[in-house]
Amino acid sequence: MIDAEAIRCARGETPADLLLKGGRIVDVFSGEIMPGDVAVKNGTIVGIGPYRARQTVDLDGRIVTPGFIDAHVHIESAMTGITGFARAVAAHGTTTVIADPHEIANVLGVEGIRYMLAASEGQPVNIFFMLPSCVPATDMETAGARLMADDLQPFMKEDRILGLAEMMNYPGVLGADPEVLRKIALAEGAHKPVDGHAPGLTGVDLNAYVAAGISSDHECTTLAEAREKLKAGMHIMVREGTAAKNLAALLPLVNPHTCRRMMWCTDDRHAHDLLTEGHIDFIVRSAVDQGLDPVVAVQMATLNPAEFFGLRHLGAVAPGRRADLLVIEDLHDLKVGRVYSRGRLVAIDGRIVDGIETPRPIGAPPAMRVPSGALDFSIAATGRRVRVIEIVPEQIITRSIVTEARIEDGRAVSDPGRDLLKIAVVDRHSGTGRTAAAFVKGLGLKQGAIASSVAHDAHNIIVAGVGDRDMSAAVETIVKMAGGLAVVSDGRLLAQLALPIAGLMSEAPLAEVAAGLDRLIAATHFLGSPLGDPFMTLSFLALPVIPALKLTDRGLVDVEKFQIVPLFVE
Amino acid sequence: MIDAEAIRCARGETPADLLLKGGRIVDVFSGEIMPGDVAVKNGTIVGIGPYRARQTVDLDGRIVTPGFIDAHVHIESAMTGITGFARAVAAHGTTTVIADPHEIANVLGVEGIRYMLAASEGQPVNIFFMLPSCVPATDMETAGARLMADDLQPFMKEDRILGLAEMMNYPGVLGADPEVLRKIALAEGAHKPVDGHAPGLTGVDLNAYVAAGISSDHECTTLAEAREKLKAGMHIMVREGTAAKNLAALLPLVNPHTCRRMMWCTDDRHAHDLLTEGHIDFIVRSAVDQGLDPVVAVQMATLNPAEFFGLRHLGAVAPGRRADLLVIEDLHDLKVGRVYSRGRLVAIDGRIVDGIETPRPIGAPPAMRVPSGALDFSIAATGRRVRVIEIVPEQIITRSIVTEARIEDGRAVSDPGRDLLKIAVVDRHSGTGRTAAAFVKGLGLKQGAIASSVAHDAHNIIVAGVGDRDMSAAVETIVKMAGGLAVVSDGRLLAQLALPIAGLMSEAPLAEVAAGLDRLIAATHFLGSPLGDPFMTLSFLALPVIPALKLTDRGLVDVEKFQIVPLFVE
Repeated sequence: MIDAEAIRCARGETPADLLLKGGRIVDVFSGEIMPGDVAVKNGTIVGIGPYRARQTVDLDGRIVTPGFIDAHVHIESAMTGITGFARAVAAHGTTTVIADPHEIANVLGVEGIRYMLAASEGQPVNIFFMLPSCVPATDMETAGARLMADDLQPFMKEDRILGLAEMMNYPGVLGADPEVLRKIALAEGAHKPVDGHAPGLTGVDLNAYVAAGISSDHECTTLAEAREKLKAGMHIMVREGTAAKNLAALLPLVNPHTCRRMMWCTDDRHAHDLLTEGHIDFIVRSAVDQGLDPVVAVQMATLNPAEFFGLRHLGAVAPGRRADLLVIEDLHDLKVGRVYSRGRLVAIDGRIVDGIETPRPIGAPPAMRVPSGALDFSIAATGRRVRVIEIVPEQIITRSIVTEARIEDGRAVSDPGRDLLKIAVVDRHSGTGRTAAAFVKGLGLKQGAIASSVAHDAHNIIVAGVGDRDMSAAVETIVKMAGGLAVVSDGRLLAQLALPIAGLMSEAPLAEVAAGLDRLIAATHFLGSPLGDPFMTLSFLALPVIPALKLTDRGLVDVEKFQIVPLFVE
Repeated sequence: MIDAEAIRCARGETPADLLLKGGRIVDVFSGEIMPGDVAVKNGTIVGIGPYRARQTVDLDGRIVTPGFIDAHVHIESAMTGITGFARAVAAHGTTTVIADPHEIANVLGVEGIRYMLAASEGQPVNIFFMLPSCVPATDMETAGARLMADDLQPFMKEDRILGLAEMMNYPGVLGADPEVLRKIALAEGAHKPVDGHAPGLTGVDLNAYVAAGISSDHECTTLAEAREKLKAGMHIMVREGTAAKNLAALLPLVNPHTCRRMMWCTDDRHAHDLLTEGHIDFIVRSAVDQGLDPVVAVQMATLNPAEFFGLRHLGAVAPGRRADLLVIEDLHDLKVGRVYSRGRLVAIDGRIVDGIETPRPIGAPPAMRVPSGALDFSIAATGRRVRVIEIVPEQIITRSIVTEARIEDGRAVSDPGRDLLKIAVVDRHSGTGRTAAAFVKGLGLKQGAIASSVAHDAHNIIVAGVGDRDMSAAVETIVKMAGGLAVVSDGRLLAQLALPIAGLMSEAPLAEVAAGLDRLIAATHFLGSPLGDPFMTLSFLALPVIPALKLTDRGLVDVEKFQIVPLFVE
């Protein structure tokens, strides 16, 4: 809501706080690039025109665009806390993110959502949330929470809650599960959108999914899939993250008719990529490199997501819009120079300016309930042949294979010579310490163990290694840090990263987190792993909604059968 | 909210209620026209594809579009009630209107809004409302109501209330009037838009008006004006009504970048035009005639207003959208063949089909408080020269002239030889019968009198004529009818039309209203008036916000000075 002071300023009766003078403004409404001076008062753009101001910045013909918007992101994936994330993306020109706190909600439930709402106040970027729709992912694991429609209901009317987050439970939608429909109705009742997540869904099932009230999709990987979904009425979020990269495939869908219903998102973007490549600026730059009209690329980063999420005060350089503004040298080699958030200069040339305070950290609720001294990864050899999770490098799917177990003293043990390592998942939520152990192929450790409290979606502790003792030491290190990642060999801690916020995030700045991850990965490579990012691979081995064979604290899950299966096949 | 039954149908598990087979569908998302079969269940489109259905209609290659939307209309202007209006526009393919009940609210206040909400239930078209923002228009007349933010507040959260209606009080916005800002804040708090009304506003004042939170404008009359407003972030409603016709002037603004923020509206469209030319179909047809891409013309009638008003379930032929559908022969010579509303066939070839029931009329609250026998239009001659309202034919502005009065027996009287007629406005709201009398030039009556309870915006009774006796008889006829229009000569009632709903609308069908108006106009022509529609002209002579000289029950208003001025100048 604008104040009387800003109205007077807009009329030219009083000077503005700030005037960005002599720039060329990307007008997302007309598609034109027009010369003009942007006047800002109390954090709001009051007008474009020849205003007086207390502070004038001469732009000398540089380009002014609205601040960029990430339409769908899991902040937790960067492993830094909200403060670290906000500063990292602000430095790259993202002034608004629509986050799905799905990870922390799986650990802490509504307390996790409350924590994210509180911790995102006073940040240099606007942080909005969608309410996690699918917590827990399945009933075949011990999760930290179960979010029903009744749990989400009190949040739905809040201003910074924009709708219901990605509806991954498409079988629930297609089966008209009453609880799923209640969650959708909650968003519809508040006139807020429901984001979709329906990789590969097509034909009549896609019709049913969209008819149920789901408005967007960010899982398209082919042009045909995106075209079908767009024509069914979905807004298409083109995702270019760390693991999933869909820009090149989907770019041909963008044309003057379709572009209004398309926008950018990162979904999951890891610390290293944020630091080195950037965020939404990287996607805009890549799209322009690949031939997209720069104005359209900017619209997809600004006006389009603002309209989709009903954020009338964002997404454009125009009166009444929040003064979230970028100054860049050149639309074709897009490098973000200055970043203004609510009229305040927050970053120059990729660095947060001095004096941008960070909000005081808020303690997150405890999220590590593992009884001490109870760890036991031994496997009684009740058979000879075992099911093994086989890693597919660079992918989150696995293969399910069966092989001869190595048996010693009546117990099945790791066989590093055949790259057959023990893997275990330990319940960290309920306090039972329930543990299931099995075998994994493809991790490549010759010695030692690695462990992580980041393990989608329930985020129990996952650990893999050659010997039980190192596996125990790695898990104990994580419990001691109240969450994090660890590499142990011969009883010695080689590397660690504390993630005390729900076992998922650190209060440290992004660069520190990235450096910590580098050390962990280097240590894992030292132990013999050939994987590019063994911790990312590890984090998906407990996710029982992605084929083919996964491990939860309750045992091996055959994802295609959607049931727990025994380790030994005979 | 979709039901489980519709989801099953969407998946092809159960037959649809209706299948529109073999049409060519205007896909407002991709801009393509694509062959396809549209399946409908429980009033909702469940999918496009090869569905089974209980009823199949073979379209034989005809075009299917979403039902049309009128983005801004005063239903009262058609003088028929909501039932008559809904049937009239449905016959022309309009399946949704966003109405501003400004007229009835000026008469009945919140009771008028409640009446419109109740009377619009169960109609064959979707009727949404914006809340009147400027009741009364001024304090220089006796109005039927005064609507403050507190009065509007309980309505704002209702589902069929879409926001705040045209903010005509732009001086109030520019002056940051706290009550005006409160009304805007009410809409913003509900995440609903505020429609604008700012003819000619430009430069820094336009910036201030937009910055205050106003999102649309339907008053642009020139291309430059519309372009400036669009670039300031306003959605542009291109109006083509009975009096104001802006299509030809604004059409050049429509291009692939701008079109998403443009839509059609009628604002005020009288009975005759609705019957003979049509409604939104007429605008789409005219735009295409003038060279606009038919798909864009359809988008501006469907998806664009649906998006602007947050109507996610309207505006497209796609799963989950309400089955409001038109079947037309040809996009270039657009004639609406079949009209489906919520999947039900409601009109064929411009006629409502048999069996479409009309909701039972709801009695409107009384709106005629004139003491009997108290009418007195005599004017004591306290001077010789008088201010006269001079009509400008076909316009709602008037000129203010000064001329010699004709004085008889110490009283100023009409002088039909010089086309100087007496005009009076009688308070019909407060029960005082307060009357102000003056003179008008340009009406052209040689004898008799005409009167109307439709007199913007307060809708007191306005009457003009040669002699006081006929004037009294005309007003008494209106009072007896509880509102309406009348023509009297020599004590004889020549024509009348009862408008008992708030003195503004009839329960009669549109054709009857149009015929009644024809008779009234013919009678007025018979009495000597050269004006095309003397009642329309009359209805604006009491509106004290349009220059130059107007009459209210409190006296002559010099609109430029914005104050009451005496009749006699010397």
